[in-house]
Amino acid sequence: MQTIDLNCDMGEAFGNYPMPNDDILFDHITSANIACGFHAGDPGVMQYTVSMALKKGVAIGAHPGLPDLQGFGRREMKISANEAYQITLYQIGALYSFVRAAGGKLHHVKAHGALYNMAAKDASLARAIAQAVHDFDPALILYALAGSEMIAAANNLGLTTASEVFADRTYQNDGSLTPRSQSNALITDEQQSIQQVLMMVKQQQVTSVDQETIPLKAETLCLHGDGTHAVEFAQKINQRLKQEGITIKAPGA
Amino acid sequence: MQTIDLNCDMGEAFGNYPMPNDDILFDHITSANIACGFHAGDPGVMQYTVSMALKKGVAIGAHPGLPDLQGFGRREMKISANEAYQITLYQIGALYSFVRAAGGKLHHVKAHGALYNMAAKDASLARAIAQAVHDFDPALILYALAGSEMIAAANNLGLTTASEVFADRTYQNDGSLTPRSQSNALITDEQQSIQQVLMMVKQQQVTSVDQETIPLKAETLCLHGDGTHAVEFAQKINQRLKQEGITIKAPGA
Amino acid sequence: MQTIDLNCDMGEAFGNYPMPNDDILFDHITSANIACGFHAGDPGVMQYTVSMALKKGVAIGAHPGLPDLQGFGRREMKISANEAYQITLYQIGALYSFVRAAGGKLHHVKAHGALYNMAAKDASLARAIAQAVHDFDPALILYALAGSEMIAAANNLGLTTASEVFADRTYQNDGSLTPRSQSNALITDEQQSIQQVLMMVKQQQVTSVDQETIPLKAETLCLHGDGTHAVEFAQKINQRLKQEGITIKAPGA
Amino acid sequence: MQTIDLNCDMGEAFGNYPMPNDDILFDHITSANIACGFHAGDPGVMQYTVSMALKKGVAIGAHPGLPDLQGFGRREMKISANEAYQITLYQIGALYSFVRAAGGKLHHVKAHGALYNMAAKDASLARAIAQAVHDFDPALILYALAGSEMIAAANNLGLTTASEVFADRTYQNDGSLTPRSQSNALITDEQQSIQQVLMMVKQQQVTSVDQETIPLKAETLCLHGDGTHAVEFAQKINQRLKQEGITIKAPGA
Repeated sequence: MQTIDLNCDMGEAFGNYPMPNDDILFDHITSANIACGFHAGDPGVMQYTVSMALKKGVAIGAHPGLPDLQGFGRREMKISANEAYQITLYQIGALYSFVRAAGGKLHHVKAHGALYNMAAKDASLARAIAQAVHDFDPALILYALAGSEMIAAANNLGLTTASEVFADRTYQNDGSLTPRSQSNALITDEQQSIQQVLMMVKQQQVTSVDQETIPLKAETLCLHGDGTHAVEFAQKINQRLKQEGITIKAPGA
Repeated sequence: MQTIDLNCDMGEAFGNYPMPNDDILFDHITSANIACGFHAGDPGVMQYTVSMALKKGVAIGAHPGLPDLQGFGRREMKISANEAYQITLYQIGALYSFVRAAGGKLHHVKAHGALYNMAAKDASLARAIAQAVHDFDPALILYALAGSEMIAAANNLGLTTASEVFADRTYQNDGSLTPRSQSNALITDEQQSIQQVLMMVKQQQVTSVDQETIPLKAETLCLHGDGTHAVEFAQKINQRLKQEGITIKAPGA
Repeated sequence: MQTIDLNCDMGEAFGNYPMPNDDILFDHITSANIACGFHAGDPGVMQYTVSMALKKGVAIGAHPGLPDLQGFGRREMKISANEAYQITLYQIGALYSFVRAAGGKLHHVKAHGALYNMAAKDASLARAIAQAVHDFDPALILYALAGSEMIAAANNLGLTTASEVFADRTYQNDGSLTPRSQSNALITDEQQSIQQVLMMVKQQQVTSVDQETIPLKAETLCLHGDGTHAVEFAQKINQRLKQEGITIKAPGA
Repeated sequence: MQTIDLNCDMGEAFGNYPMPNDDILFDHITSANIACGFHAGDPGVMQYTVSMALKKGVAIGAHPGLPDLQGFGRREMKISANEAYQITLYQIGALYSFVRAAGGKLHHVKAHGALYNMAAKDASLARAIAQAVHDFDPALILYALAGSEMIAAANNLGLTTASEVFADRTYQNDGSLTPRSQSNALITDEQQSIQQVLMMVKQQQVTSVDQETIPLKAETLCLHGDGTHAVEFAQKINQRLKQEGITIKAPGA
């Protein structure tokens, strides 16, 4: 039986600033990566988002980011491995607190934005983040870019991982994402996105920008929560995957 | 056997700004209330302070404060009971994460500064904070001002409490602290401070500013960590209590 | 000739979080109170909003708030008069910098949210804020609640003031706003709002909640920038005032 | 007549956290680079530090940094040139406000920490910062690393510059600082530091780590404000320079 997890970054509102798609998106996903107050989210948003995830039966993950609210955690910062460990641990605990108080279970961790991207390539940051996850709870699942240093570091510590793939990004021959600085980095055609997802999920392969067929581990698909078509696409890919007989569920669920 | 706990706010450094007394103070206290990043502290400071507490065998408490780093959590903010619940829960979890990763045990919670003072008098805030502590872990001990709304709210929820007393503050006939706006609020004479402590610990009484002898539950004594005489006084009161045959230990230890 | 200024809080986006009405609202107002980064706004938002105001010929004001991004500057904080002076001065300068670099002119200052409300009643805070405005530039106009301590403090320093009135708030017999805690604080009927505005602008009077006709200085009308009907109401009141032969322009313009 | 400016980063306290050397250092320097609230400093600290500089007759500079209080502005962040422009402009204005209110004059700008170092090498960031200084006031002097992209960018815009040199850092053959990652980056011997300063000031030359004599423009010397020997060294170098007949004064003073 083929399965895939649909994850989405959730709870990225802050104070007076809403994230209006969140409530609807919960109907179409199986994993929520909930912001922990550093790049987005605040204690009130976290409590609400955890309660929604529990109500909708969506697996709850901590989504730690860099301490850069203004940059939404998307600007690289030169932090040390120790700092990466510390901010990851802090944010996991902060989110865990709301999950525990609500009687739920923390299921996974996925780093956000620049932290995710830096740790995908930097083995030292990857080890630090994986260690923080492990030190908090070795039963947590680490979501990270398929084929990344993060997956390697997590596996090395004995953590369960979920290899993440993208519907709207193109891939290089080595399985890495085409950098956003290149013109062909994004897939803007919806049908092409859906075809790429189906190929990744059903065949664990992807067609690279050079038209090579390359292997790719696809355990969780990242859906975007912002943008005007976010909800529509989430709904569409969810339906299509089901039509293809693919089971949509969180890892380990 | 008479016992008292000596607690001190610890880990209130931030980034480049040190709190130089911390390391030495650990030798003279039995409970550390560790800042959680809102009024002071940061992930690096928290990790270090937790490790020191574990090394020194000092009971670890979360020390949540208002989100006001510049004001050191000492400026009252009109927050709702919901917000008090949320910021308390967030900060407990953040600190818990470091304790758990280090193989330790979270022992208590003590609110900081304006949050502590507001909740001492405001039953609604008191209930919210006590509920957050309870929802995280009903085995946690809540440290709060002796005779305060916080103690009442915590007991009402079935939480264990530790009634806190002060060496350097004078008391009113009703057992409340003399407001700092009054000239006789502080005890600056060291001998008088020590005598007050001994009376509180041995007789569970205090002499009010009107020279009345009033009952006062004294389970934990607040030591200050800043100021030039902080370390000296901590050492002195610790020795004197021992000389008087009083056992110094954390509640439940 | 009767005149009124239409002011609106602008530039209250932050980082990744937009304020989508801003661009359109500029067409319907004569004064923009631009957030300065404490309760909302950031350097990028400030630069953009200043450039829009200059393009649209809208008078530019600094809109200093409490240092509480999560609470959007709406939660009262017990700050000292010195602190009020300092945060006001800081924020005026920060906004001024963008105005100066863009070749514009800073026209006024209006405090935000809880800072505005606290200083309306607290003479000490009012003096501190007025002093900061005066010390930066005595030619700046201070916008403040009609009849408030802020107006008194500013006039006392020789500052020009603009007395602010509200379309959607009811008034007490003493000319103060009905507190939001009371059920009749808000005017939700659009026609009633418009009638109140016309009476305030044309007769410098308002009908209180007790149906008394009371005098009220109306020099600038506060329009709200958020909410679904904000743009529509701004457009409507602007048109109606013009139909009534009232000149809409910023004070001193 | 040979002259040199002695500059020091000042006002880097924050909230409850002091910078105890500041008051004494003012007696030994001619330029103060005052933190503007992003990497350190707050409105209260800024007001106090500006007042001290005016009292001591020390030239006042804005000292803008990255928005990273926890990292003290020392962690590189990948910001765009636009963002560099915006945060520089914001911080210049914020400090200017206190200088203007106190009846003083803003004299110069020096970027802090990672912003200083990144812009020394990155021409795009250098241009953005120089442009912000220029757009605020083309009469401001930009302090930057001797031989850096910042000096080039500022000169290109017609700004006056002050080339900065260091007493405790070694130099490469190309005039750049030896990276801190190398073991010979720092000069820890006080006499060697003093000799390097005298050579730089008197001969506008420095001996590189390869023992080559290379030209180096020395217009302002950076003194450190933290560390136990900071005050002592400031006093010593000040005296020695005077003994050598060198005039210590701010550029343009």
